[in-house]
Amino acid sequence: MNSHRKKIEEYIDLHRHEAISFLQKVVRQPSLQGNETGVQEIVIEKLKQLNLEIDRWDPPHAELSKHSYFVESRKSYENSPNVVGVLHGTGGGKSIILNGHIDVVPEGDGTKWTDDPFSGKIENGKMFGRGTTDMKGGNVSLILALESIIKSGIKLKGDVIFESVIEEETGGVGTLATILRGYKADAAIIPEPTNMKLFIKQQGSMWFRVTVEGRSAHGGTRYEGISAIEQSWKVFNAIMDLEKRRNAFITDPLYKTIPIPLPINIGKIQGGSWPSSVADLVTLEGRIGVGPEENMDDVRNELKACLIDISKNDEWLKEHQPKLEFFGGQWVPNAVANDHPFVDVLIENYTVVYKKSVIIEASPWGTDGGLLGKVGLIPTLIIGPGETKMAHYPDEFIDLEEVIKAAKLFAFTIIEWCGVFEKA
Amino acid sequence: MNSHRKKIEEYIDLHRHEAISFLQKVVRQPSLQGNETGVQEIVIEKLKQLNLEIDRWDPPHAELSKHSYFVESRKSYENSPNVVGVLHGTGGGKSIILNGHIDVVPEGDGTKWTDDPFSGKIENGKMFGRGTTDMKGGNVSLILALESIIKSGIKLKGDVIFESVIEEETGGVGTLATILRGYKADAAIIPEPTNMKLFIKQQGSMWFRVTVEGRSAHGGTRYEGISAIEQSWKVFNAIMDLEKRRNAFITDPLYKTIPIPLPINIGKIQGGSWPSSVADLVTLEGRIGVGPEENMDDVRNELKACLIDISKNDEWLKEHQPKLEFFGGQWVPNAVANDHPFVDVLIENYTVVYKKSVIIEASPWGTDGGLLGKVGLIPTLIIGPGETKMAHYPDEFIDLEEVIKAAKLFAFTIIEWCGVFEKA
Repeated sequence: MNSHRKKIEEYIDLHRHEAISFLQKVVRQPSLQGNETGVQEIVIEKLKQLNLEIDRWDPPHAELSKHSYFVESRKSYENSPNVVGVLHGTGGGKSIILNGHIDVVPEGDGTKWTDDPFSGKIENGKMFGRGTTDMKGGNVSLILALESIIKSGIKLKGDVIFESVIEEETGGVGTLATILRGYKADAAIIPEPTNMKLFIKQQGSMWFRVTVEGRSAHGGTRYEGISAIEQSWKVFNAIMDLEKRRNAFITDPLYKTIPIPLPINIGKIQGGSWPSSVADLVTLEGRIGVGPEENMDDVRNELKACLIDISKNDEWLKEHQPKLEFFGGQWVPNAVANDHPFVDVLIENYTVVYKKSVIIEASPWGTDGGLLGKVGLIPTLIIGPGETKMAHYPDEFIDLEEVIKAAKLFAFTIIEWCGVFEKA
Repeated sequence: MNSHRKKIEEYIDLHRHEAISFLQKVVRQPSLQGNETGVQEIVIEKLKQLNLEIDRWDPPHAELSKHSYFVESRKSYENSPNVVGVLHGTGGGKSIILNGHIDVVPEGDGTKWTDDPFSGKIENGKMFGRGTTDMKGGNVSLILALESIIKSGIKLKGDVIFESVIEEETGGVGTLATILRGYKADAAIIPEPTNMKLFIKQQGSMWFRVTVEGRSAHGGTRYEGISAIEQSWKVFNAIMDLEKRRNAFITDPLYKTIPIPLPINIGKIQGGSWPSSVADLVTLEGRIGVGPEENMDDVRNELKACLIDISKNDEWLKEHQPKLEFFGGQWVPNAVANDHPFVDVLIENYTVVYKKSVIIEASPWGTDGGLLGKVGLIPTLIIGPGETKMAHYPDEFIDLEEVIKAAKLFAFTIIEWCGVFEKA
């Protein structure tokens, strides 16, 4: 094994610049929702160079929409291809899925970015741009790992399935489509930005919308109306109290360093139509975290109950119950047993590459690992370069050294898990 | 005088149905900003029937925009005519302006209306529709008053200037344009909906926008970001505290029955772009009331100071000072002396028509009376049918009996103020 590792390490060190240049090319393709073709074609070109068996298809909306874990993000995925590249093993080994999403969230307020949000600019060993951390950097680590194995002439026993999927940011339709298309394996890695911590449990989440009513009136006699904005403050506070209650009794040691293990984020607010009228409608939109062992429906019911509770003793809200909907994004939680052999393989190889023990945590956010775990029944670990706090943030960047180093860890993990075919 | 009053009263009672039908026609024209031509043509047709001298013109943006009381509501008033009709007196009397705005605010959430917002439907003596109360009902009272005088063959000594103006709801460009065009008089009435209380003082107001910054982050690690929504709550509360402070020491007896003499209404909120991102920007839009004796600039400075104050001791806000702008609507406050002769004339005739004393108050909202008073130097009284609380409200309606009765008061007031030319 050590000689294989040596070859891999040498290959990666020798080809780091090509890998970085490839990452830059990928980052410069703004693969926002509905605009994934350009970047997927670059991925395909790369996978073809590695002689992988390519599968490119637009996830079929009609079929997917019947699945109980389907999250409606749009009415069609036409021209938004998923890409899978398969490296067939010689047989007798364990298979692995390498999964990364290629979609990125919008760049937000452009003025907060120092450079163009899709510049891919490199400075002091960091590459900047939307998607560098979340999660094109991790994807390139996977590809570089695979490339290093193939180009070093190492033959694997088990199959490797590389998946470049769409729609993770809106709930995982891309990954769900890979599972329904039949892609299964004995284990999976998703290199979401964990700063190379190992997340063996991961939080799920759901999007929700609360509509709060008021009663309009002329602003000059605002006391004749009921401000939906003021009412929405109550709802906001009640939901934040629910977050406190939900987090107060979390004892899982994996969450001990996380300030808020199961966050509720209210990310959007909109209400009123005229500065001098009392607002008669406010909508709040947010995401609620779902614990690794929690059931999605239980969490839905908790949020429902919270809104019923504040309405009970409120003169206005009891007659004008805030309306709760779950819409858009939904990420299923997941957990892998501590003593699963794949966890051992990863921990061991981490020590080899990083000369220290890996930090094991539970993720504060959902990934497609929930679908791979709950629907595909595939033990899935989340570990990747980049810091979570850069994701969805202006001036998002990734430390390039981390991308390269992660590739070594992934390559070592793959060869050990899949097994190397040695000539008799 | 009593015989004139008798003739007027008879005329009005005999023609109430025509007047109501005319009001219905006017209400059915949704004269929202930029869409005033249709309704003004109906007004012109009516004024022509009364043989008034008609002046119809589009307020000239270039000229108006140089005026210090100009409020920018749009870049051109082309095809948004003002209409003035003048009834020339025989000479030697005092002149009067009858001013009413023809623009209406948007209907808001259409689902809250029982019928179409511009139905003009009549039920139980009430007419429903956007603008019935604010203030097409009052306008029709003025026209009916004028009509009753003319058709009763009463000749006035002083001139009567009837003004059907645009853009009151956004700060009074229409009325400003009448003043700059040279329309002046010894007194003015604006029949905004006061429920026939007499407002001798009136509050001004200004629109403002506060932009509150946050720092974006992934919703799953929301503790890495700063929610602009949470920050905007602080700003909202600070502004509401300012409202309390500004109202705590108001001793003017005219305000004693008003729950909040000088209201601050935050009517719009908007922020965040993604449910699972921490919001990095929230804007609040509102209107702040300006007391009858207050100076607009002083109030601007109070609001500025309030935002500086909350920022001083706040770790985040002191580095990210909320940005304050004044934009859009602005209504100048006004006050008429208690002992002005026009006040006496109105009070006296109110007693004749209503068989009780008029209630005198200070208005909780601004009208074009501020411009007539401060720019035109015309003593202006606000009194009209309809309840303020219906203005800007779904299912806005006006009690038709009130429209008819107000016409009598206005006609009696006009003949006494302008003087009747009696044959020698």
